[in-house]
This record gives sequence, C-alpha cells and structure tokens, in this order.
Amino acid sequence: MTAGTFQFHMPTEVHYGNGLSGKLSEIIRGDRVLLICDPFLYKNGTAQKIADTMKDKKVTFFSGIEPNPSCESVDAAAGAAREAQAQCVIGLGGGSSLDVAKIVSCLVSNPGSIYDYYSGGSRKLEGRTTQLIAIPTTAGTGSEVTNVGVFTNRTTHVKMPMLSKLFWPDISVIDPELTYTLPPAVTASTGMDAFCHAIEAYWNKESQPICDMLSMGALKLILENIKTAYDKPEDKEARGAMILASLTAGISFSQTRTTGIHAVSFPLTTEFGASHGTACSITLPAFIRKSREGAAEKMEVLSRYLGFKDTLALADGVEALMRSMKMPVRLHEIGVKEEDIPHIAKVGLTAAIIQLTPAVMNEETVSELLRSIL
Amino acid sequence: MTAGTFQFHMPTEVHYGNGLSGKLSEIIRGDRVLLICDPFLYKNGTAQKIADTMKDKKVTFFSGIEPNPSCESVDAAAGAAREAQAQCVIGLGGGSSLDVAKIVSCLVSNPGSIYDYYSGGSRKLEGRTTQLIAIPTTAGTGSEVTNVGVFTNRTTHVKMPMLSKLFWPDISVIDPELTYTLPPAVTASTGMDAFCHAIEAYWNKESQPICDMLSMGALKLILENIKTAYDKPEDKEARGAMILASLTAGISFSQTRTTGIHAVSFPLTTEFGASHGTACSITLPAFIRKSREGAAEKMEVLSRYLGFKDTLALADGVEALMRSMKMPVRLHEIGVKEEDIPHIAKVGLTAAIIQLTPAVMNEETVSELLRSIL
Repeated sequence: MTAGTFQFHMPTEVHYGNGLSGKLSEIIRGDRVLLICDPFLYKNGTAQKIADTMKDKKVTFFSGIEPNPSCESVDAAAGAAREAQAQCVIGLGGGSSLDVAKIVSCLVSNPGSIYDYYSGGSRKLEGRTTQLIAIPTTAGTGSEVTNVGVFTNRTTHVKMPMLSKLFWPDISVIDPELTYTLPPAVTASTGMDAFCHAIEAYWNKESQPICDMLSMGALKLILENIKTAYDKPEDKEARGAMILASLTAGISFSQTRTTGIHAVSFPLTTEFGASHGTACSITLPAFIRKSREGAAEKMEVLSRYLGFKDTLALADGVEALMRSMKMPVRLHEIGVKEEDIPHIAKVGLTAAIIQLTPAVMNEETVSELLRSIL
Repeated sequence: MTAGTFQFHMPTEVHYGNGLSGKLSEIIRGDRVLLICDPFLYKNGTAQKIADTMKDKKVTFFSGIEPNPSCESVDAAAGAAREAQAQCVIGLGGGSSLDVAKIVSCLVSNPGSIYDYYSGGSRKLEGRTTQLIAIPTTAGTGSEVTNVGVFTNRTTHVKMPMLSKLFWPDISVIDPELTYTLPPAVTASTGMDAFCHAIEAYWNKESQPICDMLSMGALKLILENIKTAYDKPEDKEARGAMILASLTAGISFSQTRTTGIHAVSFPLTTEFGASHGTACSITLPAFIRKSREGAAEKMEVLSRYLGFKDTLALADGVEALMRSMKMPVRLHEIGVKEEDIPHIAKVGLTAAIIQLTPAVMNEETVSELLRSIL
C-alpha cells in the first residue's frame, strides 16, 4: 500500500448521525431553501417531515426528479430555484436528486440552461453563491461526497458525467434513519452499487493508498451488513453501517473515478432499463475475476482481508450474496441477448473510465467478459 | 466499526509524490512568498534548493524556528511576512515550522501579536487572504493536515494548542524525498509520534469510523516500514510509506484529537527536554496496556489486524520495536525521578484531551501508569 503520485481533496463537511436530517436549520445559511427530491419522497411525506423541522425557513419543493435525471429536469429545477431565489439548495434522495441539486445550486447564479455548460456547452460555471447540502436516502450512490453529476440527454439517450469543483456539497448530512424504509430490493441494488464504487476505486489504475484504506473498510462493512439490512430493514446497526460504507466508498471513488463496471452500466441502464445499482453489480463478479489480469496481488490482499481464500472465491462469494438477495447475476435476466453484446461493449468503451480497469479493455475483451455472464 | 454521531472535514488539498517540492511554482498564488523553516533546513541548503525552483517568485526566508516554537518566534515570523507582503506562506519542516506558518499566514492580514488571539487573547482571527502551503520534512507530525498549531509561551513555559479553521493548509505537498536525509534517531522519534497519532485517534472516546480506517492503515504501514527507514535512510519504499502513514495518521487525529499520551508529553517536553516524538512514545506501551480498560474489544481487533495475538502483545511488540531503534522506554532514561511523577500527572491532567483516553484519568491513575514505566 505505497504510492507513486496522487492527490486527495474532499472538502465537503460530513455530518453523520441518526436524526440529523431533522436539525437542518442549524446548518443552513439564509432563509430561502429549495428542497429537491423525487416524487416518491414527496408523496410519502419524508420531504415534508424534514421541511417541518425548518419552521424558520421558507422551503420550496421541487419533486420532479426521475431516475437517471434528464437535462430537462435540471432546467426545470433550476427555474424553481431561481424563482425561489434560493440561498440554499438541498438534494434529498438517491443519486439523482443529489446530482441535480449540485448543478441547480450553481445555476441559481449562472445564467442559461444546463446544456450551456454540459458536454459540448460553450459556457463555464463561474462560482456558486448558493449553499449546497446533500442528504442521501439510499446507501448508495456516494454522490454526497463527489464532485460529479450524471445527467441524461433525453433526445440522444446519452448518459454523461459532468465534473466541477463547485459540485462538492458544502455539507452532507448522513442520517441512517432515512434508509430504514428502503425496500429490500433497493437496499440490495444500491448497496451493491456502493460495493462497486469501493472495489473500482481499489483496483483502479489511478488507485491511491488513502482511498485503498477507505475502500477496504467500506467493502468489509458491506459484506458484513448488507444481508442483514436486506432481511431486517429496521436493523439500526446494519443500516448505520451500510450508509457509512456508501459514504466511505463515495470518498474513495471521488478521487479515483470508477472503471469498467460503471462504463458498461450506462448502456445497460439507458437501453435495457436496469436500475443503476443492478446495471453495475450484474457485471461485478465478472470484473472481479478480470481484475486479476492487472491487479492480481492487490486483489489477493483484499480478498484475504475480506475473509476469502482468493480473488476467485471473492467473486463467487459476491455472486452468491447477490443471488441470496434475488438480484440478477446473468445478463439475460435483464433482457440482454447474445446479439446485443457487441453493441453494449462498444457503448461501454466510449466511456473513458473503462480504461482505468486493470485489464486490457477493447471490443473483444469486453464482449468476452459480457458473454461469460450472459 | 459503526458509529454514533460524528463529523469529518479535512478541506486541505493533498499532493503526494517524489520531487513535488521542486514544482511549487505551479501551485503558488501570487508572486511574493515567505518560506518558514528552521535554521538546520536553511543551513543545509534544503530551503534554498526549493526556492531555486521558484525563479518566477520573490522568495523571502524566515529560518528562525526552534523546536516547540514560541509565541515570540511567531511574532518575528509574522513581522517578516508583513514586511514581505507575502501572498503565500510556506511552512517547510517538522511540526514547528508548519505550525508557525499556519498562524503567520493569518497574521499577514490580522493585526497585532499572536498573544492577541492565542489562549486568553481578546481578538479573533478574521479570515485569511494569504495562501498557506505546508511541506513536511519529517514523517512525522501530521501538522500538514490538521487545523492545530501548538505554541509555547516562553515566560510561563506553558505549551498550548490553538485551533482555527483558517489553519487548514490550502495545499500540503508531501514529498518523500525530503525525508531521505533524516537521521535515524529522528526517523524513529517522529515515526513513533505518527504511531501515537494514529492509535490515539483509534482508541479515542471521540473516535469515528472514517478515522479508524485511516488509523489502521497508518499503523500497519509504520510497523512494516519504520525499522527499514531507520536502518536504511534512503530506502524509497520505506520512506514513501512512512510519510504516507504520517499523513493518514494526521488526518485521523485532526478529527478526533489526541489523548493521554500527548497530554503527558507536554510536561515531559517542556520540563525534561525530551523531543516531542520521544515524549509521546515513551508512554505509548503503557497507554496501550491501559486502553484495554475502556476499549478492550476494539483494541483486540486492531492488535490482530496488526499481526499480534492480543493487545498486551501489541504493547510488548511496540516497546521492543522502540528499543531496537535505541529509543528510551523508561522515564528514568529521560531524567524523570519517582518524586516528579505526581507533578507530571498533575500537569498532564490540565490538558483537556487527556479525558479522551478510554480509561479513568485522574492523579492516581496517571501516576500509577507513569510509575509502571519509571
């Protein structure tokens, strides 16, 4: 665990603890707040319950966030933020709402549409004066401690990440209680997404030792707690451990980025409708096996630390764990056919992060990997 | 490794890599730089060598920093910074120069003496416009990733920490090459200081899981590398690992603070002349044994992770390691007598951090601990 050259920078202030999402007034700057969430969190009263604890603030809701949020949703939310003259934007939810909150907090003081700044846009975000607070409700995306937002162009169906140092939340509030009501299937898929973040940071060609330490901790927490959280949704210890693992995995991949798993997940989500967590974890065991190509020794160290005899045993263990949570582990289970494989490989290879995988990644090798789990 | 309530915030940008101290021009804001170091680093040419790589900057030196820096040195350095109208203050050295650079970078734009802001002072630091860069030359103090400076009042001989969010360096440059020339005795004492930081963060009553992960990594790195760095000062891998361990241990204790070891080290330094690292590590094995009182299970997990059968074996192993590096492991070796013990305990107990030790800390228990290693 030594290192060549690396940087580490994660300026977000993290507040972790049960019940902290009910104490936001203490940390919010200003009086006018826009709270961004998805329709589900609005309808089930979670967003309102949090707003009720901020009696001294004027809280406006924007609850139109869909999974894999579109640029159109971003612009609609930005319109709401500008109209409310928001001094603070809160993203409450899974990755989608948090990602949207990041760019919306910037668009309050930067004119125009997200398209002006996103992939190919001609403008540059010039600072952010609106406070940005991220509150994850899944464990999960890790978006609360990254400077990335992923947005989908509804016309082209292309899902692309956008990076900005302005996207680091000022404060992230990690309240395990918010995850107690997650349905088991969501616990499983989002938890395995966090597993992917941690392991992709660890085997990453740009891995670095601070993140390795955090990844090892996160992976151990997930293996020890995900099945309990899945079986007993209100198990406080398991829920606390899972959202903590998601947080530390998020810090890890915020520095290294992800690899092939996430690259290939993009077409699996946009074209086959798999949730982000499912689209990632379905290729996880195959990528664990593949990681031996360029990170054999490091993966052996990790596997033994996690209680497995070697890397292949870790891959098998992860696959069995996913199966025990009724997650798909073969591509045909989400509708992929043999003839789709070259196309999925091709689209996956357009994401630059795929080359951070510790193995040769080209149409042939990626197709072969996908075929191994068809 | 789950958690109650905690915060994590370490906004410093860390740049790690061999040779990076020769590329400062790329990261410095402005043209006028004050470089703060101790007389040794000035005379041996290290400071000049670094300045020579900044031909495009106007570099002024302040090389009057002594170990356990006094408030008087701070004020002298602040005078130099104001006269140079420094836009960037660089602290180069062990903890002393880094600590001084922290407050001096603030005093460029805040009027008066450190005494106006320090323990009992009536003024408050109002922002910092001068860039602050920290470059450690020992592995070490971890000061490059903390918001603390420790200063000594020369009149009262009291050594007190000062905290400010303005003390987080903007950038810390971690260049292992700077440590290649450290003499073995300094490698040993500063390395064991880092060990104390990591383990005090881990067993701390305010410990938290992110720091636990980093502490475990740091402790493993130190145990695996300190003797090699001591025996072979130019061993690149060992040096890289030690300064990395110091960095991660620094991040850990920046969040939790330290405990009894550091509390008791203050009188051992100011009254018995022991170096900071020696004054800390001399009580380390005794505090490891004591930590079983309130952190038994957690310490067992750590001990096994580090390759020892239990916590007592870890304490014995650490003591043997120190002995192998010719470090004192009994208080009489640094001049402490039986009759000094109640006084040392009393002074140690004035530091609030002593109550973060996972054991009852009062005059009786601390004296007993000290007597066990007389």
